[in-house]
Parts: sequence; C-alpha cells; structure tokens
Amino acid sequence: MDAFRSIEWTEGKLRLLDQRQLPTETTYRDYISYIDVASAIRSMVVRGAPAIGVTAAFGLALGGQQSEASTLAAFLDDLQIAGEHLIAARPTAVNLSWAVAHLLALAADAAAEKTAAFEGLDESVTAVSEREAIALIKETLLIEAQALYQADIEICKQLGMHAQALIPDVANVIHHCNTGALAAVDYGTAIGIIRVAHEQGKQIHAFLDETRPRLQGASLSAYEMQAFGIPHTVIVDGASGYVMRTRKIDACFVGCDRVAANGDVANKIGTYNLAVVARAHSVPFYVACPTSTLDMMLASGGEIEIEERAATEITHVKGQQITPDGTPVFNPAFDITPAEYVSAIITERGIIYPPYKENLAKLMG
Amino acid sequence: MDAFRSIEWTEGKLRLLDQRQLPTETTYRDYISYIDVASAIRSMVVRGAPAIGVTAAFGLALGGQQSEASTLAAFLDDLQIAGEHLIAARPTAVNLSWAVAHLLALAADAAAEKTAAFEGLDESVTAVSEREAIALIKETLLIEAQALYQADIEICKQLGMHAQALIPDVANVIHHCNTGALAAVDYGTAIGIIRVAHEQGKQIHAFLDETRPRLQGASLSAYEMQAFGIPHTVIVDGASGYVMRTRKIDACFVGCDRVAANGDVANKIGTYNLAVVARAHSVPFYVACPTSTLDMMLASGGEIEIEERAATEITHVKGQQITPDGTPVFNPAFDITPAEYVSAIITERGIIYPPYKENLAKLMG
Repeated sequence: MDAFRSIEWTEGKLRLLDQRQLPTETTYRDYISYIDVASAIRSMVVRGAPAIGVTAAFGLALGGQQSEASTLAAFLDDLQIAGEHLIAARPTAVNLSWAVAHLLALAADAAAEKTAAFEGLDESVTAVSEREAIALIKETLLIEAQALYQADIEICKQLGMHAQALIPDVANVIHHCNTGALAAVDYGTAIGIIRVAHEQGKQIHAFLDETRPRLQGASLSAYEMQAFGIPHTVIVDGASGYVMRTRKIDACFVGCDRVAANGDVANKIGTYNLAVVARAHSVPFYVACPTSTLDMMLASGGEIEIEERAATEITHVKGQQITPDGTPVFNPAFDITPAEYVSAIITERGIIYPPYKENLAKLMG
Repeated sequence: MDAFRSIEWTEGKLRLLDQRQLPTETTYRDYISYIDVASAIRSMVVRGAPAIGVTAAFGLALGGQQSEASTLAAFLDDLQIAGEHLIAARPTAVNLSWAVAHLLALAADAAAEKTAAFEGLDESVTAVSEREAIALIKETLLIEAQALYQADIEICKQLGMHAQALIPDVANVIHHCNTGALAAVDYGTAIGIIRVAHEQGKQIHAFLDETRPRLQGASLSAYEMQAFGIPHTVIVDGASGYVMRTRKIDACFVGCDRVAANGDVANKIGTYNLAVVARAHSVPFYVACPTSTLDMMLASGGEIEIEERAATEITHVKGQQITPDGTPVFNPAFDITPAEYVSAIITERGIIYPPYKENLAKLMG
C-alpha cells in the first residue's frame, strides 16, 4: 500500500506530507530552500529519526542548489552554513546530524580532489573549472540524498525481516509513538517490524500508546495501521501496565532517536516508563534501530542532549486549551532508557543482544 | 481560599460545579432529582471518590424528597430504586455505594422502628403516622447527607495532617489525577496533603501528571494549585520516569477509588504505571485513602470492577478529533496497583504500613 508518502523528491522540489494535520487532513507541502526544510523539521511537519535524516539530506542538497558561490571554498562555506542550520532544527535524533555530516564530507572530499587537480593551473582556467566542479558537487549531493532515500526503504525492510525471529505466529504487542512509513521513507522501524509480521501472515495485534504530548500514536500510528489493515487498539500512555497485567503481551517494540555505544536509548518521552513497566511484567522490550541511529561517539545516554519543546504542546491539544492560563509545564521531547531495560536492539544487520558495548562495537567495527 | 466549591446544598437544591468545563469556564448546575444527579456522576460533572460519595448521599436524599409514597414500605421501595440507580452511575468508587447503603440502612432502621411502634394500632391511625414517619425520614436523610458533607472536610484535613510525618520541609513530589478540593468537599486527599504541607510553610513543589484521557491533572489539579498558590509543574503521564531519573523526587502521592482488604488500590488509569516507575527509582509511593474508600469486603483488587468508559474520551480532546475515523480504543477508567507497590496508606485515623491485611483489619476492626 502506498496511500501516502512522507517524503518525495519531485520536479526539483522536496515534497513533505504535513504530519501535523493527520489523520484528519492530508496536505503535502513543497520545499525549495534549506531554511524552510529546517523549519519543517523543527515544527514537525516531518518527524521520526529516519525521515528527519533523509529530509535533512535533501535540505542540504537544496542548500547546495541555492548557493551562488563561484569558488569551491565559498561553496563549501555555504554548505556548512546550511548544514549547521539544519542540524540546529532538532538536537536529539542523530540521523539528522549524521546525514548532514555525511553529505558535507562528500562535498569536502570532492572539492579537495578538484582543488588538488587544479594545483599549478592558470587562474582563468581554474575559475571555469571551479564553477563546473561546483555544479558537479551540487548534482552529487542530490544523487546522494536520493541514494539515502532508497537505502532507508531497504534498511527498514531488512530490519523488519530480522525481527521476525522474535515474533510468534500469534502475537500481541505494545508500540510507542510512531515509527512507521511516516517516520521513515517507507515501512519504518518498529512499525515496519509489525507490518512485516502482518505481511507474513502472522496474527499480530498492536496496542498503540497514544503518546502524549503530540499524540503520534493515536494519530499517525493508528492511521498507518488502518491503511495497512493491521489489527490495533489505541490506549492512553498510562494504561500500558494495566494492559500487561490483564492480557498476554508478547513484546514491546519501539524506535529510537539516538542509541549510545553502551546501548542506552534516547526515544520519544514515555518510552522509559514503558520499558520499566515491561520489565516489571517480564515482557521483552525491543528497540528497532537502523545503524544510522547508533551514535558510537557517545559512551552513554547521559551525554545525549534532550530537546525541550514548547509548553503549548502540553497546555493545548489541537488549539484547545487544557490547563489554566499561565500553568508551568515541563516538556522534554525524549527520555533515555538505560540499556539494562533493553532486551535486544534490532538493526538492518541483525539482532544485537547484551552486552551492548561489546556487541555494538563488533557490529560497527 | 474558597474560590470554588465542588458540591453545595443550597435552598433545597444540590449545586455542583461542572468540572468538565474547568479550567476555562466556571459553571454551576442545580439538581432536584436523583436521576439527574446520577447523570451528573456518570458524565463526570462531579468526580473524585469522596465527592461522588457525598453527591450520591444528596442524590438519595433528593430521591426521598421526590417520593410520593404514603406507606413506609412504598417509600423504602422508592429509596431502593433511587439508590440502585445512583450506584449504577459509576461502578468502581466504593464511596458511592457506601454512601447510598449508609443512607438506605438509616431509612430502613427508622422505618422498622416506626413499624414496630405501629404494631396493633388501628389502620386509620397508622396511615397518618406513616405519612409523618416518611416526612421525618426524608428530613433525616437530608440531615445525614449534610453530616457526611461536613465529615468529609474534617476527614480530609485529618488525613492531610497525619501525612505530614512523610513530607520533609523541602519536598518535590509527583501527583496523579485530581484529588483536591474538587474531588472532595474541600481539601481532598492527596492534594489535601500537599496543601497542608504548603500551609505549614513547607517548600513543596508538585509535578502534576496530566492524566489522560480526561486530563484531570492538567485541568483540575493545576487549577487548584494555582488557586492555592502551590508551586507546580504539569507533565505528560509518560514523563514521570524521566523526571524521577533527572531530579530528586521525595514521594508520589495519589488518591484512590477503592482499596481492598489486602491493600490493593483501584485508582485512575496510569496510577499503576506511576507506582511501578516509582519502585524502580526507590521513590516512596503513598496512597491517600479515607476509611470510607476502604472496602474490607473485598479480599483483593482482582475483585474490583473496572469501569470502561466511552471511546470518545481517547479519540477526541475537547471535541477535537485525534484518531482516524473508526479507530478501536481500550479505555479502562481505573487500574489496580498491587499492595506491594504501596509504601503506606494514609487515612484520617493515621498512616498504615504493610502488612496491610493485618493492619487494615486492625484499623477497621
């Protein structure tokens, strides 16, 4: 099914499905500037770690297209500025900074190669060649963004296949936030796993945490489940323990925004509570994590910056005021689930079990 | 401060503050029929176990006023019908059935006494006397409802005083749902405790779980805290673990709708998750429980009926649709927190520690 597409590159524009209006309205928005792409990421027109990564790659490619620099050095400066602007849009998901760094390195390498080739040539010759080189790098960035786009689909499918070893033929699972086709290019991570199980003919049913404050579970995950025909039931976040006590739950599946080298997981606020409650009921707690979401530079989750978002996400729902005027709120967008609560980390290269420090290093080394 | 009053008996009418419209609108509604009172309880114009109990007592007293019976037997039948209708409004909170049973027993006793006195008298004499007796019992029911009303204030204050032994001079606590003056006649239970601490000059700050689906924490508790000038911060229910990991939290305080003889606690959905997360962080988890909320007839929480409420409480917030059309939801209004997660039960007669079965029996025996 392809009733929707979160991200699309079409006719020189980046097209994003505005997820803030789902499920009641389906609006696509077109972008031709990296500044607008950064705004779209910040305001959560697009969200989900893999989707943000691919979107940022296109954003940087657009930054390249927008540059009017006539020297390679100036062009790289323009890209750097665009990259920093994009990275600043949201601090927690590593895919964003990973994608930007990846494309910046690609551009820097290509520029260095050209510069070396120009060594000793006459300035009038190199000026033309530099402009040609810039045009080439602009094209390369766009091609690479499209390659990341395609790779994301393949990675999510592989991740979904590997995870099937963990899912019985009849399964009842709990899922937090949204990690499906809307959070990636297609399939997604944790919901991708559930979708593959469903496509393989398993009788899978998912309880969907609604996921306050932004209700991605109630709006986006329910929307996807309905589109894919996967049996599901929305619950409030506080009901997961009651569900585990009163029904047989086989596993929890969540995505992640950044995973440290020791296996600590940054993910949507509420993930940690779900993990603690799962542990109390001996329900396995699985984290779906493309290797692009692993941050091997971070020793532990304590080093991960947790984004705090606007108070209005809590004080208002769809424009309706809930709290008294002036009510103080605390709105961390993510939390850290310590590795000890994670039963396994599922990547596109296979399932990783504890001890994570050793096994993730092996995977990535 | 008395900026609001959840329940008031005035000029022969029961006046309720419509809590569904708080904090943005303050509307009072008057009731003169037990059927309308039952509707108000069911639709949560009034909520909170102590408040429901007192409201039901006035509801039964109104049922008495409405009766046109001319014999004691017919009058008791009318009361019985009113009582059953009121009890059916909400199944979980024991205060409701307790208050109704209490007033019915009072009426039955008074009627039995009169009937015995009429023994052997001429029918023309007893007919007049029965009508007088009915009028007297009607009056008695109203007086008893008012006595319960007054007693509730006193009970909550005493409970709040006892709890101070558990609260340091500088304290940071987490609270779930609403358990304050809006959930009772005044003061309330868990919020009553926080309020007494504040009135005693303690530096107390409360994180308020917003408490989906009906958001009693974000709307009602924040409203009360603001009215009382108590420092507070609203969080989403899924953030409690993150708050406990990143700040020093001294205790969790919650109310309850029914506590079984073994100390198992039925309370607003999300209470159990909070208790499990508190345990994982070695944060004491305290349940404020007037003895009228103890149900010594129930051996354990497994026997407590858990009310399921309308899907629209989850699919819509303040009339705004969140989920796709037709999304299936599961909406239990309460959950059961096993006694093993409860650090202490605070009553108006003192603090009860485990083992609860023995210590609650001692308290009530």
